[in-house]
Amino acid sequence: MSGPTAIVEAPSPKKAPAPLNGVNTPGLFATIDVVKNQPQLAAFQFRAKGDWLNGTHVQTVMSDFSGAGGEHSHKAAYTANADHPLVLCGDDRGPTPVEYLLHALAACLTAGIANIAAARGITLHSVTSSLEGDIDLRGILGLSKDVRNGFSGMRVAFTVKGDAPDAKLQEIVQQACARSAVLDSLRNGVPISIQANV
Amino acid sequence: MSGPTAIVEAPSPKKAPAPLNGVNTPGLFATIDVVKNQPQLAAFQFRAKGDWLNGTHVQTVMSDFSGAGGEHSHKAAYTANADHPLVLCGDDRGPTPVEYLLHALAACLTAGIANIAAARGITLHSVTSSLEGDIDLRGILGLSKDVRNGFSGMRVAFTVKGDAPDAKLQEIVQQACARSAVLDSLRNGVPISIQANV
Repeated sequence: MSGPTAIVEAPSPKKAPAPLNGVNTPGLFATIDVVKNQPQLAAFQFRAKGDWLNGTHVQTVMSDFSGAGGEHSHKAAYTANADHPLVLCGDDRGPTPVEYLLHALAACLTAGIANIAAARGITLHSVTSSLEGDIDLRGILGLSKDVRNGFSGMRVAFTVKGDAPDAKLQEIVQQACARSAVLDSLRNGVPISIQANV
Repeated sequence: MSGPTAIVEAPSPKKAPAPLNGVNTPGLFATIDVVKNQPQLAAFQFRAKGDWLNGTHVQTVMSDFSGAGGEHSHKAAYTANADHPLVLCGDDRGPTPVEYLLHALAACLTAGIANIAAARGITLHSVTSSLEGDIDLRGILGLSKDVRNGFSGMRVAFTVKGDAPDAKLQEIVQQACARSAVLDSLRNGVPISIQANV
């Protein structure tokens, strides 16, 4: 996927190394250049459609979104299932909703690590992560007003292997954190409006 | 699934209606009673293991968690895939990480609606939701320091049909919001620590 041709085709050869780690680095740099000149292309809207199936079993479809000045569809209409576990009287037909927050965080930070490593010309061998989230269910069970409903804390531990000195790999993880949509959303909160049509 | 036997077996017959909407309501009330007397059982820890596959494609496994004084495994080790879309130079092998935030929110609120409706003896016919999240990618692309990385806002629109007056159905949605782990986490933020082993 790499080679002189790809480098020549990239708009800024010095800034855009060849594809690496499966990342289309020239395309990524070209995208950044385009958005720099047309900032309105950066406005994206992501969407999901949820459906209650039975008990606490819910299925969501994620199929289309807008951005870069147009409408887009995923290659497939992706579905995800969630449920409460047996110990909380659910049927355990999928991960719990809160586990998807851990997944979203792992996925966002790891994708960032891959993109940033490629942009810096560093070959990655592996990136694994272990995530934990603590929650005191007295909040959602209505047993204490002093206990919040959500996670009291989340922890992420990455193990990153690649062809670079340890300090460079550490910097890549730091930069992924500095540019993560999910980390910012989860750390700093998002205004959320909810309406019910009955 | 309902009937006099189930009601008699429940610890607080007046508080615990029969199973409804696929929700094991007596079990849920019994669980709340047990946790009320042993609050340490409310401490849960959810976990995920992330693996970078290629490019921005990441797979997460959610298999075990602790809570109610012990270790638990899901019926299966659930996996979820995430990727960046083609328009952002990914291979689109799954939803984007941020779409999973929408899914987590839909799933948590909908499960709450189902549980609360069952606890109030209200039969639900359908619960669907439509979610949107707005994001200006100049943040994560490093093109503006004034633009946040995460969602600037999220919107949820529920359509709830059930055997109850409109006001009762509205109250159920409000109560689900008041007791949602994901809504609280996303609205109010979570302390997150990140470490990298290289």
